[in-house]
Amino acid sequence: MLSRHITDRLRTERTPFYLYDMDLLRRTLESARAASSKHGYKVHYALKANFDPVIVGCIRGYGFGSDCVSGNEVRYSIESGFDPREVAYAGVGKTDEEIEYAIRQGIFAFNCESRQELQVINGIARRLGKVADVAFRLNPDVDPLTHKGVSTGQADSKFGISYKEIDEIAAEAGTLNNIRVTGIHFHIGSQITELRVFEYLCRRANTLFAYFASRGFDLTHINLGGGLGIDYMTPEANPVPDFETYFGIFARHLEIPRNVEVHFELGRSLVGQCGEFISRVQFTKTNAVGKHIALLDGSMTEFIRPALYQAYHSVENLDGAGRPEEEFTIGGNVCESTDTFAKGARLPELRRGDLVSFKSAGAYGASMASRYNMHDLPRAVHYHGENVRG
Amino acid sequence: MLSRHITDRLRTERTPFYLYDMDLLRRTLESARAASSKHGYKVHYALKANFDPVIVGCIRGYGFGSDCVSGNEVRYSIESGFDPREVAYAGVGKTDEEIEYAIRQGIFAFNCESRQELQVINGIARRLGKVADVAFRLNPDVDPLTHKGVSTGQADSKFGISYKEIDEIAAEAGTLNNIRVTGIHFHIGSQITELRVFEYLCRRANTLFAYFASRGFDLTHINLGGGLGIDYMTPEANPVPDFETYFGIFARHLEIPRNVEVHFELGRSLVGQCGEFISRVQFTKTNAVGKHIALLDGSMTEFIRPALYQAYHSVENLDGAGRPEEEFTIGGNVCESTDTFAKGARLPELRRGDLVSFKSAGAYGASMASRYNMHDLPRAVHYHGENVRG
Repeated sequence: MLSRHITDRLRTERTPFYLYDMDLLRRTLESARAASSKHGYKVHYALKANFDPVIVGCIRGYGFGSDCVSGNEVRYSIESGFDPREVAYAGVGKTDEEIEYAIRQGIFAFNCESRQELQVINGIARRLGKVADVAFRLNPDVDPLTHKGVSTGQADSKFGISYKEIDEIAAEAGTLNNIRVTGIHFHIGSQITELRVFEYLCRRANTLFAYFASRGFDLTHINLGGGLGIDYMTPEANPVPDFETYFGIFARHLEIPRNVEVHFELGRSLVGQCGEFISRVQFTKTNAVGKHIALLDGSMTEFIRPALYQAYHSVENLDGAGRPEEEFTIGGNVCESTDTFAKGARLPELRRGDLVSFKSAGAYGASMASRYNMHDLPRAVHYHGENVRG
Repeated sequence: MLSRHITDRLRTERTPFYLYDMDLLRRTLESARAASSKHGYKVHYALKANFDPVIVGCIRGYGFGSDCVSGNEVRYSIESGFDPREVAYAGVGKTDEEIEYAIRQGIFAFNCESRQELQVINGIARRLGKVADVAFRLNPDVDPLTHKGVSTGQADSKFGISYKEIDEIAAEAGTLNNIRVTGIHFHIGSQITELRVFEYLCRRANTLFAYFASRGFDLTHINLGGGLGIDYMTPEANPVPDFETYFGIFARHLEIPRNVEVHFELGRSLVGQCGEFISRVQFTKTNAVGKHIALLDGSMTEFIRPALYQAYHSVENLDGAGRPEEEFTIGGNVCESTDTFAKGARLPELRRGDLVSFKSAGAYGASMASRYNMHDLPRAVHYHGENVRG
């Protein structure tokens, strides 16, 4: 719930924009750091969730590494001050140019998705006279019980090295002189709320770690990816994810040597709840079947999760105090029906000029914005306590 | 089918990119112009389909107007040389600033979506000492028999003025001194292939035109929107949509006075087939359930239609000549399963380095690109005959 002071201050901002609660971000980062460092775990921030420079700078200040999925993200990490040795680089379609850049920077690890990729990294490293540190991204065939679009660790997916290829890749890795296999990596999906899924992951990870050890690999790290979900339904009740329980599951179920570093890649759980997407009601009307419709100056162009994943985001009328509740369909200003944020949302009556906030929009909000319909990219507004910086 | 010469030339282009066949675009524009001008119809190009400046410049050269859905599109139209009197401006969430800009430019018409919007346009025009030309966008409650995400003319939608509001809005318009109602407007959806839908639209349009005439409105135009589909399944067999039949339906079924201008808004049908999305196979592998997977350096970031609308696009291996066919899952390089272009596509075996082309990507391709995963925006490459301009 935004204070009156902040809501009034927002009225002068050009809509739509993303609003970030930097105090909540800090509380979240503190909680994640405390819960992970208790077990000696290393956390990388998954930049794809949000690459707003103020947010990234704040996260870096807490000592997290970065988790990248493109050469541009690797470059951005290093240019924003992350130590290259804290940069992990994943992604199924790395180009030669991206690989070369990352090898030259001496990053922590490539999370390598296939045998062919391993050969390519080795070849590029040889040409550069370098040795590249690589983790095998293994597909553990664990069902993350989440939206199919963000599920990544099942057998029939494009991600990772399949268990059928493991013998071959283990044998081949020994013959490649310009890679050093330093770890194994998993990432089974995103927005996981059934935490027992992570227990299954631990069991697979234990087996696979033991397998590589038995094949003579001297692994120095294991990377369990991310995936911890946030509470989209009642974000105000659960602004900070339960990192204590999350990391505790791994502490209880991982069975690997003590000297092996344990890494994680958190994105949504670090930044999801600190952000809101704010736009303004331009018009209201009632359609022929009697439904109230509020039309915003924001859209799927700036915030695509509802259209792309049918994602639910809690919505608030920031100007609704004291008004009776009504059911509204909330439409964006893009010319297609896909661009509908909510159907039948109950909230204090929406009127022209009202500010509307969609909660839990800190992750995969601004980072997915396009310029469809030639919209300007959405701006970012940050606040610290009562201090708003537009 | 691209010539050998062009395919070879493309090998030096940085992938991914959009490739545009300017000759096909010209043939399409000539066909649309011939079929529409036969009946004296005016065509506006729906900029949201593709705002590539070379394409827009070419279209303007054929004498089409523009159809805009944002203030930025209105500005872009006028700055690229469209006569403001050929600019139509639709959209459910126009801001005051956008409305003011368009009034000052003296555009052809606002397609006005609600009674409240009519009042707001009138108020702004009064403040500016102007009279704004307005068309009522009416919701005719016609099912376009297309993907629900691009269906826009049914009763339970966010679009247009409902038939229940028509009496009120007709009465109110007479009391507003700073608007002039010059037309009525319809747009029932996109990618419509069941052409009888347009017959239903004509019947509704006839009824509604007669209604406004009977209420004393001296309408000078009717705008039937767009929606003509293209052949995504076999684009090479049908590179140019059947504009002759499309406009012929309206010529046969519209019953309005001869002196009333008839306008259309075509987007996809003008530019859809001239564009391809081209990217390069980075890696191939076989997953645990035996499926062949090819991983590209392009993704939903550059080309979101398959992920957002589950859209089918015909795919070609530009380097596959003479190779046996296989089934492939074709994945983009973004870290989520949503980013899958095709499952089980049969095409000549894909190998690392091959160029892959997704056809019919000229509309809602580049214009929906984002920077997700910090990708660079995709470039555009145009060719005229055998002459490629990167």
